Amino acid sequence: MNTATLLISCPDRKGLSAAIANFLYTYNANIVHSDQHQDNSENLFLMRVEWDLADFTLDMSAFTAAFQPIADRFDMHWTVALSAQRPRMAIFVSKYDHCLVDLLHRHQSGELHCDIPLVISNHEDCRALAEFYGVPYHVVEVNKDNKAEAEAKQRELLQAHGVDLIVLARYMQVLSHEFTGAYPQKVINIHHSFLPAFDGAKPYHRAFARGVKLIGATSHYVTEVLDDGPIIEQDVIRISHRDDVDELVLKGRDLERVVLSRAVKWHLAHRVLVYSNKTVIFA
Amino acid sequence: MNTATLLISCPDRKGLSAAIANFLYTYNANIVHSDQHQDNSENLFLMRVEWDLADFTLDMSAFTAAFQPIADRFDMHWTVALSAQRPRMAIFVSKYDHCLVDLLHRHQSGELHCDIPLVISNHEDCRALAEFYGVPYHVVEVNKDNKAEAEAKQRELLQAHGVDLIVLARYMQVLSHEFTGAYPQKVINIHHSFLPAFDGAKPYHRAFARGVKLIGATSHYVTEVLDDGPIIEQDVIRISHRDDVDELVLKGRDLERVVLSRAVKWHLAHRVLVYSNKTVIFA
Amino acid sequence: MNTATLLISCPDRKGLSAAIANFLYTYNANIVHSDQHQDNSENLFLMRVEWDLADFTLDMSAFTAAFQPIADRFDMHWTVALSAQRPRMAIFVSKYDHCLVDLLHRHQSGELHCDIPLVISNHEDCRALAEFYGVPYHVVEVNKDNKAEAEAKQRELLQAHGVDLIVLARYMQVLSHEFTGAYPQKVINIHHSFLPAFDGAKPYHRAFARGVKLIGATSHYVTEVLDDGPIIEQDVIRISHRDDVDELVLKGRDLERVVLSRAVKWHLAHRVLVYSNKTVIFA
Amino acid sequence: MNTATLLISCPDRKGLSAAIANFLYTYNANIVHSDQHQDNSENLFLMRVEWDLADFTLDMSAFTAAFQPIADRFDMHWTVALSAQRPRMAIFVSKYDHCLVDLLHRHQSGELHCDIPLVISNHEDCRALAEFYGVPYHVVEVNKDNKAEAEAKQRELLQAHGVDLIVLARYMQVLSHEFTGAYPQKVINIHHSFLPAFDGAKPYHRAFARGVKLIGATSHYVTEVLDDGPIIEQDVIRISHRDDVDELVLKGRDLERVVLSRAVKWHLAHRVLVYSNKTVIFA
Repeated sequence: MNTATLLISCPDRKGLSAAIANFLYTYNANIVHSDQHQDNSENLFLMRVEWDLADFTLDMSAFTAAFQPIADRFDMHWTVALSAQRPRMAIFVSKYDHCLVDLLHRHQSGELHCDIPLVISNHEDCRALAEFYGVPYHVVEVNKDNKAEAEAKQRELLQAHGVDLIVLARYMQVLSHEFTGAYPQKVINIHHSFLPAFDGAKPYHRAFARGVKLIGATSHYVTEVLDDGPIIEQDVIRISHRDDVDELVLKGRDLERVVLSRAVKWHLAHRVLVYSNKTVIFA
Repeated sequence: MNTATLLISCPDRKGLSAAIANFLYTYNANIVHSDQHQDNSENLFLMRVEWDLADFTLDMSAFTAAFQPIADRFDMHWTVALSAQRPRMAIFVSKYDHCLVDLLHRHQSGELHCDIPLVISNHEDCRALAEFYGVPYHVVEVNKDNKAEAEAKQRELLQAHGVDLIVLARYMQVLSHEFTGAYPQKVINIHHSFLPAFDGAKPYHRAFARGVKLIGATSHYVTEVLDDGPIIEQDVIRISHRDDVDELVLKGRDLERVVLSRAVKWHLAHRVLVYSNKTVIFA
Repeated sequence: MNTATLLISCPDRKGLSAAIANFLYTYNANIVHSDQHQDNSENLFLMRVEWDLADFTLDMSAFTAAFQPIADRFDMHWTVALSAQRPRMAIFVSKYDHCLVDLLHRHQSGELHCDIPLVISNHEDCRALAEFYGVPYHVVEVNKDNKAEAEAKQRELLQAHGVDLIVLARYMQVLSHEFTGAYPQKVINIHHSFLPAFDGAKPYHRAFARGVKLIGATSHYVTEVLDDGPIIEQDVIRISHRDDVDELVLKGRDLERVVLSRAVKWHLAHRVLVYSNKTVIFA
Repeated sequence: MNTATLLISCPDRKGLSAAIANFLYTYNANIVHSDQHQDNSENLFLMRVEWDLADFTLDMSAFTAAFQPIADRFDMHWTVALSAQRPRMAIFVSKYDHCLVDLLHRHQSGELHCDIPLVISNHEDCRALAEFYGVPYHVVEVNKDNKAEAEAKQRELLQAHGVDLIVLARYMQVLSHEFTGAYPQKVINIHHSFLPAFDGAKPYHRAFARGVKLIGATSHYVTEVLDDGPIIEQDVIRISHRDDVDELVLKGRDLERVVLSRAVKWHLAHRVLVYSNKTVIFA
């Protein structure tokens, strides 16, 4: 199905729903998914609506001109996305390949609605895997002296390939503020703990030392503050005293994979709306 | 807040959302919750919308007359409920009191939006508990010979107390078709298994014998077919070989309580919509 | 069944299992539960063994004298507990009664192997509830000026009633180091977050502000450092953007109840062994 | 570490633990994991003990002769396995490759302690994947007329490769009783439902039709009765009315992968003991 998806956030006001519904009905939209949310603590209205373009009588190239008056009237932040335009996703990886293999396999099986023009890594290790799935693999070495230069190379690659979304699939380098600032809400990371617990380094070791009874993983948009961006998805798994740190790492990998994949999938389906450093998931 | 809640199901058609939104906007409704769903396999549109009555310019006594034309146009099944009209809930119980104490305590703490005019039981055991929470307790003995007579007494009590909802809180008698037929989608049961597994008698014993690794509980509307009505909520908990049947019963009780309470709460908040022997939960 | 339970921790050494098994066999013990664990990172051996006293040929009053030579040989920390000696548990509560009602109901239904000689509170609110379950209720007012005096009164009450275990069932006062120091591994608290996330005050508000996708509850032994003692049990529940802070509080209550009850139950069954600020649960 | 693992089941009798512990101590075993369980309803004793062979003074070739007298005395069923002898695992697959890729990736990353000499399929689809991971891929076509012949070929391949364990990774053919009878407790299947619910065909469609609120996956040993063998592992995931059958299939895949992998891993680590058509997992 060929669809368009509108994501809206604005101050909550009477007549909002009617204005949007009437606009879509005027052009004969066949709505296939609609979900909305009011955050009363911030008096905010948030909405996702997706419609079939088959019978839609407004040409999408004229959509902005037609919709902007309504957006202005209600002070909307809004975006519209077309299913026909597949987002272009780059995957960053270091040596751990469990998230990479998961993303590539899901992509191949049609689960992720995107193109993957390249994988970028600071190591050679995952080349064979990426190339097996037909994705070009670029190594950009990073060390403590060449960080700025390395990021310049990475950003050149991203621009050359028209990348819309960057997924850090256990990429072990911290990106600079300049880098992440250039891709607001377009860099998704997987952190191997239940944030905000155990942010920063070695979360499994610290979870083991603290004696927690569950471990977690968190997928979030990357912001300037480490491990502090809007959380997209989290999950946990029960552990016991029988699990040493190595076993936590193994159990955690299964979480990391599935939590990151859910987040990526929702982002690609335009189901994530960010406000106040948190997310609404229209799933 | 004084609100009205509209629950709608009808064939999915263009213009539905606009018609409803315009109707509400015409009378200056301040929408506080709106959620809708399309079941594409049945071409069905399902919606819940709740609005603050403070600024609503249509008197609710005139609501049906005003809304029916729209309902007719779209072949809607619909109901409207007012938060000012508290549903009246009867609890049926036998000897196990863990669900009863949970419901009574939640009610006392303001979590359940209803009145509880009476508890009906086939045993004396739970009288002190009900009366501690200020709820009259009626014993209607049931045996294999007096079933029809007992149900007649029960129904008399229910009518005398204007009951809208019956909750079977581990009530160990099977109600007749006549009884449940008189209260369609108004009798909520808790079954102590993950339905459809282990429907019928002694589910914990059978779960133990089968060697399952998780046990469950299921809350559903009661229909003519035993343990087959629309499921409102389910949950599970992990067990191990260390758990004997007695331990399954104890772990299961914690599930039964919370699963039944969620179902009751959603029903009372008009968040449950039934179609095709299943439910949409607008939670 | 009349049983004895031995809890042991010591440096891991060859011959340990054989020494313990032989000791028990010598006196004709019928073992009903045995579980052991090696923590390789600390070279520690931890064990729980429970046996039926019916055929046991050693009088339990002579147990220490008979077992101490083995304990000395292997540098054991050890305790032995008799099922015939029911622990005496005090519950501390403030105004929230959801954990209190859960503990009292479980106790009444035979799920908690203990006596509850008293409930201590800084408010009158829960008196009727405690007294309905036949438990004397003592109010000890606490304010910023009388803390030491209040704790003196509380400790007097605890001693007068021979209390072995103190459960803080959402008791909203912080106990002094003197107090908790006098009851090492004998004060169990429920904290309404997934520790170490959101330790301290207002965890649900902070969870809402951070936008987490799951909330949790943690039961732990109280130590000198706030919310830092050995964790006995934790659990989480999924939330969504539809849940405001009030809803988090309600969902959290269900977690608090069940997490605290599990911890208390395991403690009373001598299934918890503490080392290195964490716990082994022999469940 | 070079270890031996003993799995024992026998009638529960006094002196069992002592006899086993003494035997191991006599030969200077350094125990690294020991776990036991009493099933009181069947008066059964079940045990797993694993020890480091570094200091063990009994040559493992003489183990049976040395241990058999104890086994005879207590009527034991027992097996001993050496970590130095890697089990040989065959994977059967049809067209769905999500479980296959998961097993192959875990194997490559060292998570599964086994060799994988071959993959057998009734289709060509997964050849590239298997070969990427360096595993020979054999196609044995199966149709309604050649079943016996096909199984004969499969069994020839299994024997030629010395296979100890067969994993049915969404293999869509039902094996004959002759086949499964030849590999008792050596064929592990993944069924895409929470058994015993929705055994047989099309479980996701039936789960959707029944309106369940959670879907599951079950890994079990294959026996003569379809979907009725001893359950090794199960897990579930929450679904909502928003999930259509296609979405159930996708969510289910994530369960199938992880549930099957856990079962395989436990089997390979000799952590599974079967009795009375159920399993004890010494995890």
